[in-house]
Amino acid sequence: MPLNVLFAARHDRWESYETPLRNAFSEAGLEVNLAQDIPPAKVDYIIYAPNSELRDFRPFTRARAVLNLWAGVENIVDNPTLDIPLARMVDEGLTQGMVEWVTGHVLRHHLGMDTHILGLAGEWVRDIPPLASERPVTVLGLGELGRACARSLARIGFNVTGWSRSAHGVDGIRCLSGPETLAAALNEAEICVLLLPLTPETENLMDAARLAVLPRGAVVLNPGRGPLVDDDALLAALDAGQIGHATLDVFRQEPLPPEHPFWAHDRITVTPHIASETRPSSSARVIAENIRRGEAGEPFLHLVDRGLGY
Amino acid sequence: MPLNVLFAARHDRWESYETPLRNAFSEAGLEVNLAQDIPPAKVDYIIYAPNSELRDFRPFTRARAVLNLWAGVENIVDNPTLDIPLARMVDEGLTQGMVEWVTGHVLRHHLGMDTHILGLAGEWVRDIPPLASERPVTVLGLGELGRACARSLARIGFNVTGWSRSAHGVDGIRCLSGPETLAAALNEAEICVLLLPLTPETENLMDAARLAVLPRGAVVLNPGRGPLVDDDALLAALDAGQIGHATLDVFRQEPLPPEHPFWAHDRITVTPHIASETRPSSSARVIAENIRRGEAGEPFLHLVDRGLGY
Repeated sequence: MPLNVLFAARHDRWESYETPLRNAFSEAGLEVNLAQDIPPAKVDYIIYAPNSELRDFRPFTRARAVLNLWAGVENIVDNPTLDIPLARMVDEGLTQGMVEWVTGHVLRHHLGMDTHILGLAGEWVRDIPPLASERPVTVLGLGELGRACARSLARIGFNVTGWSRSAHGVDGIRCLSGPETLAAALNEAEICVLLLPLTPETENLMDAARLAVLPRGAVVLNPGRGPLVDDDALLAALDAGQIGHATLDVFRQEPLPPEHPFWAHDRITVTPHIASETRPSSSARVIAENIRRGEAGEPFLHLVDRGLGY
Repeated sequence: MPLNVLFAARHDRWESYETPLRNAFSEAGLEVNLAQDIPPAKVDYIIYAPNSELRDFRPFTRARAVLNLWAGVENIVDNPTLDIPLARMVDEGLTQGMVEWVTGHVLRHHLGMDTHILGLAGEWVRDIPPLASERPVTVLGLGELGRACARSLARIGFNVTGWSRSAHGVDGIRCLSGPETLAAALNEAEICVLLLPLTPETENLMDAARLAVLPRGAVVLNPGRGPLVDDDALLAALDAGQIGHATLDVFRQEPLPPEHPFWAHDRITVTPHIASETRPSSSARVIAENIRRGEAGEPFLHLVDRGLGY
């Protein structure tokens, strides 16, 4: 009997994922009926994207797990109709893409590239940047993505501090944890990277008071979640010169509306949610592995802790 | 008897180097009389920058070596009055600065950052870049700087090819050598980094024919030496769309004259010779170590091969 696996993501993703998923199931030795439309009572596993129309999980009476295609689960974790295991996506392609975006934008700000990209208009002004070892960078959030980015920055030579809610150790990186150390993590951070999960505790974490703790002229990079930042406080801190630049990949509303002040601000760079994109081929292998585990009675990978919210 | 060490660089460098040199001599246990003006016949070692006014080495009858403050020696290697050992600077600070510039600008082009820095003007256009593993990058030149940059790019995940005149092996990098393999090194290079020494063989290496071998739309980064590129051929290849962008840190004439067409070209980024800058503290230690070696009868570090020209 093939397993019935429902693909509950928007229709435009089906084209990207169908072949990689079928290949991954076949590589994992799974016999699967993969479809976008299966009677709920017959579904064994649900592949899910949080912008799917599926919101009521009650009819899926025999489903064994919801396998999220995204790293973020804040749009599903509190769904009261969901009482089966929920797994986040931890895709090596997604992690690698995030490492490239974060490493690239940290180097961009470190080297002062924008001045040259926008052009010196014939003026030979040689501002030599410090070495990376003299540039303190703080990564807030030491989950899969935060740890990978912190390691990449440290390998290049940056002076990296990592901060997280609960204690983590990452080789070569000064790791701080808990609310009482947040100010210490921020107060020397010339570049601050936000890679925290979105929870009630982290929403608006970067408010006026926290932004004021950063050194004057600091750069904020947000490839994590839009609501980590208080948008109005960020605009005020930029206009006051307390924040030198913000490069933002995620927003409270996406697509960011054309009239939003972030677009036109000359010290904000908007990247349109490109830092972390699930890659179909590698993420299909993660989905297949979790179904294999479910069928073998092994624990699922990347299971969400509903109490923590991530 | 203290050693007489002449500092033959421009006067404005004296302020940066005097203290680091004195500290490095002291750490190395050397008793040194360091000055900008010493009777030539009494000088034991010459610390030299190729833009110094000193061009006639004949009066320095007892000098044991010329210790260059720069990585490049093309302005001194053919000086017919120089018949004592000449050492290049291999400064870990200089190498590290180059690694940061090259890694940063490769990531910038890889991620398509300029589009976002210049601004999307409210249009949410999600062009997801490929992963670094899908981006072929070629580094021409596998000396100290080329090897360090190739390794840094490979660590991030780029698909790196290195090419050099003579054979070099660098872990994790496809290495090609010799003129017959240059086309193979170029023809898949979506990003091409020039880190060759300047010699009669490498002058104008990137001419119209070589630029045409790169894949259409390739990016050229030149942090090596200005004359490696035929400027007119580069402008023509950019205007024809064969080259997508050039980011140039070095030029035939520096400062680059304000009227030079590179400044205003919208697909050229000029950085004003900031990629590799000797850092006083680390390079002073290299100078001190070479003087210690000279006095102990040990071979000098980083000796220039006058036949090869570097």
